[in-house]
Amino acid sequence: MSTKRDIDAQNREAVGRMMAARPLLKTVAKAADVIPGLEPHMLLHAGPPITWERMSGPLRGAVIGALIFEGRAADEAAAIALVEGGEVAFSPCHHHGAVGPMAGVISPSMAVYVVENEVHGNLAFSNLNEGYGKVLRYGAYSPEVLDRLRWMNDAMAPLLRAALEDGEPLDLRALLAEALHMGDEGHNRNKAGSLLFVKLLAPRLVRVAGNAALAAEVMTFLGDNALSVLNPVMAACKAMADAAHGIEGSTVVSTMARNGTDFGIRVSGLGDGWLTAPAATPEGLYFPGFSGADANPDIGDSTITETAGIGAFAMAAAPAIVSFVSGTPQDAMNATLEMYEITVAEHQHLTIPALDFRGTPTGIDLRRVVELGIAPRVNTGIAHKEPGIGQIGAGLVRPPLALFERALLAYAERYGL
Amino acid sequence: MSTKRDIDAQNREAVGRMMAARPLLKTVAKAADVIPGLEPHMLLHAGPPITWERMSGPLRGAVIGALIFEGRAADEAAAIALVEGGEVAFSPCHHHGAVGPMAGVISPSMAVYVVENEVHGNLAFSNLNEGYGKVLRYGAYSPEVLDRLRWMNDAMAPLLRAALEDGEPLDLRALLAEALHMGDEGHNRNKAGSLLFVKLLAPRLVRVAGNAALAAEVMTFLGDNALSVLNPVMAACKAMADAAHGIEGSTVVSTMARNGTDFGIRVSGLGDGWLTAPAATPEGLYFPGFSGADANPDIGDSTITETAGIGAFAMAAAPAIVSFVSGTPQDAMNATLEMYEITVAEHQHLTIPALDFRGTPTGIDLRRVVELGIAPRVNTGIAHKEPGIGQIGAGLVRPPLALFERALLAYAERYGL
Repeated sequence: MSTKRDIDAQNREAVGRMMAARPLLKTVAKAADVIPGLEPHMLLHAGPPITWERMSGPLRGAVIGALIFEGRAADEAAAIALVEGGEVAFSPCHHHGAVGPMAGVISPSMAVYVVENEVHGNLAFSNLNEGYGKVLRYGAYSPEVLDRLRWMNDAMAPLLRAALEDGEPLDLRALLAEALHMGDEGHNRNKAGSLLFVKLLAPRLVRVAGNAALAAEVMTFLGDNALSVLNPVMAACKAMADAAHGIEGSTVVSTMARNGTDFGIRVSGLGDGWLTAPAATPEGLYFPGFSGADANPDIGDSTITETAGIGAFAMAAAPAIVSFVSGTPQDAMNATLEMYEITVAEHQHLTIPALDFRGTPTGIDLRRVVELGIAPRVNTGIAHKEPGIGQIGAGLVRPPLALFERALLAYAERYGL
Repeated sequence: MSTKRDIDAQNREAVGRMMAARPLLKTVAKAADVIPGLEPHMLLHAGPPITWERMSGPLRGAVIGALIFEGRAADEAAAIALVEGGEVAFSPCHHHGAVGPMAGVISPSMAVYVVENEVHGNLAFSNLNEGYGKVLRYGAYSPEVLDRLRWMNDAMAPLLRAALEDGEPLDLRALLAEALHMGDEGHNRNKAGSLLFVKLLAPRLVRVAGNAALAAEVMTFLGDNALSVLNPVMAACKAMADAAHGIEGSTVVSTMARNGTDFGIRVSGLGDGWLTAPAATPEGLYFPGFSGADANPDIGDSTITETAGIGAFAMAAAPAIVSFVSGTPQDAMNATLEMYEITVAEHQHLTIPALDFRGTPTGIDLRRVVELGIAPRVNTGIAHKEPGIGQIGAGLVRPPLALFERALLAYAERYGL
C-alpha cells in the first residue's frame, strides 16, 4: 500500500521523465510503414476507443473522407457501406504512439511526422496539418479537401521528408520553449512555432527540392498556416507524456483525449486502460453564421498539449489568444495560475516570461483535481456536429470532473487504498 | 500665439499622421541611386550632425570600415588620412530620409531598403542588418566584417531586390502589429518580426533565385538573425515619424537620434534644426568580459522606434526581452505605462495584448516630458567605446531631460509664448 509520500515520489518520477524527454522531429514517412500495429484495413482516430454507431458527425465525416482518400470507397455511400459491412477496423491513435488533432483520422497511406524522444527512445507520430476551413480533421470530405490531402501526401510530404533528413533532426522542445516566449501556448496558438518551423525548414526545402516552384509552394503552404507546427508539437507532447506513463503508483494523468463523443483519460500508474465520460461542448467564439447549437462535443487528441504542460496550461504566455478563444488577457493569466493548483511541477524547459519565467504547470495530479474540484482546462477548436462541414469556432472546455473521481476510485482499488 | 487647445489640436494632427502612415517595403537599391543628396564623397551617419574630431570610437570605426568598403582607402591609416585631408563629407542619415542602427553609416555603394509611406508619399531608407558580433554598425571593420558586407551587397541584396519586386510590397505596419502580439517590442527584440519577414520572403527568394544554394544561404542568413527586420522596421518608423514632422505649432517629438557623442531631437513644430545634449551611457547587461567601463555613450538612429511608439514604449508587449536588456517583466510593463504619461495618443494599429489590447503610447509631447520630468525611455544595444571591437551588451537609457527643457524654451521663443 502506497503512502502519500510514496505517491508524491512516484509522481515526481513521472513528471521528471515527462520534462526530461527530448522529442526530436526526425522525418516524415508513410503511416503504414512506421506506425506499429496500423493494419491495411484500419483507421486510427482521436480519443478513446469508439464504434461507428457512437461516432459523432465530424469523426464520421473524417472516416468517410479517409476511405475515399485510401481509394477504398468512391463516395460517401460506399464508405458507409464498407464500414457497416465490417470492412473497417477502428483503433485509437493513442494505442499506436500516434496523435491527431480533432477527428484525428490517420489512414495507412497518409504521411506522418516521426518524432523520437532521444532520452527514453520512444517514438510518436502525427499526421500533417491541412490548414484552416474545410479540412478532414473537422469532418469535411469534399473534393477540395481530398485534393489538398493528395497534394500534401504526394507533393509536400516527400519534400518534407527529404528536408528533415537533410541535417540534424529538429529539437521540438527547444522550438516550443522559444514559441512560448513569443506569445504561443502551443495548442490553439502556434503562430510563432509555425514561423520557427518554416524558418528551420526553408533553407533545407530549397536545397532538396530541385524544383523552385514546388519549394515555394510548400513554403507558402506551411508559412500561411499558423497551425503548421501543431501536429509535430502534438507528437512531441505525446512522446513526452508517454515517457511519464507506466510509473507504478503514480497518479499523474498521462493521456487526455476526446473522440467527439467521449472524453478519455489514462493515468500513469493505472496501466493502458481508459476512463471515459461524455465529452462536454466547448464554450467559445463562433465564426459568423454559427452558434453553440451547431457545435459538436469536444474532439481531438490535441489535449495531449495540456497533458504535457502547454496549451490552456500555458495561456499566460499567450495573451493575444483571447481574441480567438474568448476571454480577456487576465483570464488567460488566471487559467495558468489555476493549473498550478492541480499539477506536480513547473516545467524545467518551458517557461512563461510574463510570470517571471516560471515553468508551465506540468503533470496533472489526479488527487489534486479531485480534492480541489478543479478540472484541467483545455483550449480547442470547435467542429460542426454534422459531417462534411468543418470548423465553426474555437474556445475553452474542461473534461467532466466525474471522470477524475472515477479514476481516483480505480486507483484506490488497484492499489488497495 | 498658440493656446493650449491649439497645441493639443496640432499635436493630434501630427500623431494622427504618424499613425495613419502606411509604410510599405518596396525594394532594395544602391544608396547612391535612391537616397536624395547622398554625394559620392559623402558618408551618412546616425544621430545629429558631428565632426570627425568629436566622433566616438564606434562611429570612427564604422567610418573607417565604410571607406575601406567603398574602396577609397586600403586600411585604417589611409582612411583616417582621407578624413583628415577633408576628402570625406559627413551628413546625418536623418537629413536624407534615412536611418541606420548604432553607428548608422551608409556609404554610396551600400544596398538599402526603400520604404514608401503610401498615405503621405514620403520615402525612407535603411541599410541591411549584418547580424550579431563583429559588425560595422558597432564600429568593427576587420576583414570578416568587410567580407560579410560585400556578400550582403553583392549576393544578398540583388536577390532581396528581386524578391521584393516579385509581388506586392510588404506592409511593415501590419508586420509590426503582428510582431507586437508575438513578444517583440520592435527595437531590441525583433525575433517574431524577423521570422514573419523570412516567411514572407522565402517563397519569393526561391522563385527569383535561379540558384538554390544562394537562396538557401540568404534564407539562413536572414532566418538566423533575429534582427533581420530591424532595419526595415526602422525605415518604417522613419516614414511614420516624418509624416508627423513640420506641423506648425506641434510639440510632438519627430526625431530622436544619437551619434555616440550627442543625443539629438527634432520637434514637429520647430523645423529641421536639432537640439542636442551629451548622450548618456546605457545601463544594461554586458557580454562576458565587458562592463560599463567599456561602454560607449548611447548611439544610433534606432530611437526612431520609440519616436514612433514602439521599442521601449512597447516593452509591455515583450516580457521576454528583460533577459537581454535587464529588469523584470513587471519593469517592462511599467515602462510602457510610464510612457503613456508623456505621449499624445494610443496607437490605432499597434496594440499590446497584455494591456487588454491597448494601443502603444505614441507621439512624445515635449510639454509633458518637461512638466512631469519624465524623459522618454530607450532600449538599445551597447557598443564598445573603442573602434574595431563591436557590441558588448544591451540595455536601457534615457535622453537628458535638459534637452527637452531647452526644446521647450526654443518652442516658446519661436511661437512667442
